[in-house]
Amino acid sequence: MWADLESVGLDAGTGGYRRFAWTRTDHDLREWFGGECAARGLDLTTDLMGNQWAWWGDPDAAVAAGDPGVVVGSHLDSVPDGGAFDGPLGVVSALAALDALRERGFRPQRPIGVVNFGDEEGARFGVACAGSRVITGAMSPDRARGLKDRDGVTMAEAIERAGGTPHHLGRDDATLARVGAFVELHVEQGRVLDHLGQAVGIGSDIWPHGRWRIDVPGEANHAGTTALDAREDAVLGLAATVIAARRAAEEHGCLATVGKVDVVPGGVNAIASCATGWLDARGRDPEAVRRVVTEVSQVAGEFDALVTEESWTPSTDFDPALVARLAGLVDGAPVIGTGAGHDAGILANAGLSTAMLFVRNPTGVSHSPDEWASADDCLTGVAALADVVADLAGPTAA
Amino acid sequence: MWADLESVGLDAGTGGYRRFAWTRTDHDLREWFGGECAARGLDLTTDLMGNQWAWWGDPDAAVAAGDPGVVVGSHLDSVPDGGAFDGPLGVVSALAALDALRERGFRPQRPIGVVNFGDEEGARFGVACAGSRVITGAMSPDRARGLKDRDGVTMAEAIERAGGTPHHLGRDDATLARVGAFVELHVEQGRVLDHLGQAVGIGSDIWPHGRWRIDVPGEANHAGTTALDAREDAVLGLAATVIAARRAAEEHGCLATVGKVDVVPGGVNAIASCATGWLDARGRDPEAVRRVVTEVSQVAGEFDALVTEESWTPSTDFDPALVARLAGLVDGAPVIGTGAGHDAGILANAGLSTAMLFVRNPTGVSHSPDEWASADDCLTGVAALADVVADLAGPTAA
Repeated sequence: MWADLESVGLDAGTGGYRRFAWTRTDHDLREWFGGECAARGLDLTTDLMGNQWAWWGDPDAAVAAGDPGVVVGSHLDSVPDGGAFDGPLGVVSALAALDALRERGFRPQRPIGVVNFGDEEGARFGVACAGSRVITGAMSPDRARGLKDRDGVTMAEAIERAGGTPHHLGRDDATLARVGAFVELHVEQGRVLDHLGQAVGIGSDIWPHGRWRIDVPGEANHAGTTALDAREDAVLGLAATVIAARRAAEEHGCLATVGKVDVVPGGVNAIASCATGWLDARGRDPEAVRRVVTEVSQVAGEFDALVTEESWTPSTDFDPALVARLAGLVDGAPVIGTGAGHDAGILANAGLSTAMLFVRNPTGVSHSPDEWASADDCLTGVAALADVVADLAGPTAA
Repeated sequence: MWADLESVGLDAGTGGYRRFAWTRTDHDLREWFGGECAARGLDLTTDLMGNQWAWWGDPDAAVAAGDPGVVVGSHLDSVPDGGAFDGPLGVVSALAALDALRERGFRPQRPIGVVNFGDEEGARFGVACAGSRVITGAMSPDRARGLKDRDGVTMAEAIERAGGTPHHLGRDDATLARVGAFVELHVEQGRVLDHLGQAVGIGSDIWPHGRWRIDVPGEANHAGTTALDAREDAVLGLAATVIAARRAAEEHGCLATVGKVDVVPGGVNAIASCATGWLDARGRDPEAVRRVVTEVSQVAGEFDALVTEESWTPSTDFDPALVARLAGLVDGAPVIGTGAGHDAGILANAGLSTAMLFVRNPTGVSHSPDEWASADDCLTGVAALADVVADLAGPTAA
């Protein structure tokens, strides 16, 4: 499976992946997922947002019986020039865990689902976890449809061009009702497991995190003839805001990042009329994160900037009973928190029983071609996931 | 003429012009120029770089007679979301001055040329005055051919796609020999004429100016999981560099601007692996400009940035005799310097007799949709240009 995916969306220049939602690359990845599910005799369905769900067993019969299924999986899209593991490792491991269970002769009492969530990274439309947000009602269909990519294409247009039906978008309770438990396996995006010397860990919670758009206004003018004191240079205001974000994050023990910037008109000899930066802020303590954003907004305000909250996800605790059960199943696995958002967090906030497994990342580097996990650790992850699914969907064995 | 040009390359969203070299819009502008010249019975030629020259009279006979022609004109391309006047005012005024002379019954002793220089703004390939640089040898044909636009298209490919012959690029002495004098009329890009209450001024010199590319390296990583002290965030280094540029410019009495920025990979939740800014620096005193660049480079160096000089144009004095002659012809016109580069400056550096006329810009705003000159001032400019051409190409009247 890994070899099949290796070339899809790989940029030869950067060595990173560019797998953005509703593109040709995304289509290829969805086709690959459909093929793998078909080869395993799974029933493939898509929900109102186009997320792919493949079932072993009848999920609706289980709902009727009051004992809905066990779902594993993750996403296949990437950030710009991302790594190979963030997302695909969870999908591939889910399918591999299923194969391992079948090799063991395992026969599930509850149906088992494998999910491929769409647009988890939000690389194209700026909102992460769009796939799970829409089906849980965390994002309204109107807002989703109206989001625009860099070229001004709306999400509705993108979905339509990809052959989807954007007017179907919306909360999908029937799909969610089938999920008795969801366990997402993911490569770790820090170095906690590496420091602890463990191949696999169990996620306890996701830190609160949010994204703010900062639009600094300026006055377009000629760079070679406009006196310094007659200027309103938007880039200067954004630069001060970027530095303020780092300072505030250090002070309050949070993380703050500006990783995307847009300068208009963007001419080498034109003073900018607008400079936009996107602030990503997170931390264990939501109050501290709010303080960071307040301080950044104050500095941005000195340049008459408009600060818009694009998303805010409160602290998310995974289901403590499920976390404890996983901790009992995976030998020696530590229970750790994370600053990264995941579809598992969106589902947990919607009231579903959810947990995560993390696989060691020796350098901690993620969202980069250098993202890595060893083959041994990945196989340990698959085995752990298979044990978890066997326990949750069991208890009968052949 | 103004009405014909009004809609070409106008962006409905911004209200600014996007007239970039070797695009469809550029093609339309060149066709318009060719049509206007044909309607006036001028002989249109293109030089080795594709710049358009239209002649009234035989320029080669004049070269043979040792008394080459008088050329007026400017450029038709624009910065991103530029104004209507920067460039086109000079071309339209040149054609209008010719019409005025013919109405007066003027018959030139020396041939009169009207020129449309290509790619003056450098908006697409990052080097200003590419058209005049290549034909004067100030930029080598190999360097020009290899310049890349935002999409990775080289100038050679762009010229070829536009129907040109990039392997012809190069110094064009035959074309330059035809230019006995060049007078470029241009909208002022500051407010000196407005302060002096004059409609038209005469350019004395162009300040030294240059452009530097600053590449700040970073390490791509996840914004939500990478500890602050484990980060190498390229955007932070660029922000510090931008602020240092402003500070140094204030200290040394120069102008410094970063108006174009590129952040890679540019994901909202990805720490940047590279952030590039382009520094535009100018001032009356070349030593002071160099000091600004040195100080900016020092700050950039603290972030391991690579600073590359993309262009440096020394202080350019226009031909003092020509400037004095123009000052005698245009009643009350002040003689002023400018911080903006122009094709006239490139030609002056190549040893040609060159001068400029500036038309008042009441707000001083340029490179913006708000760029403006009143119809009265524009007509005053045309009349002044007609007088200048009549004097230089005279002295016989009908």
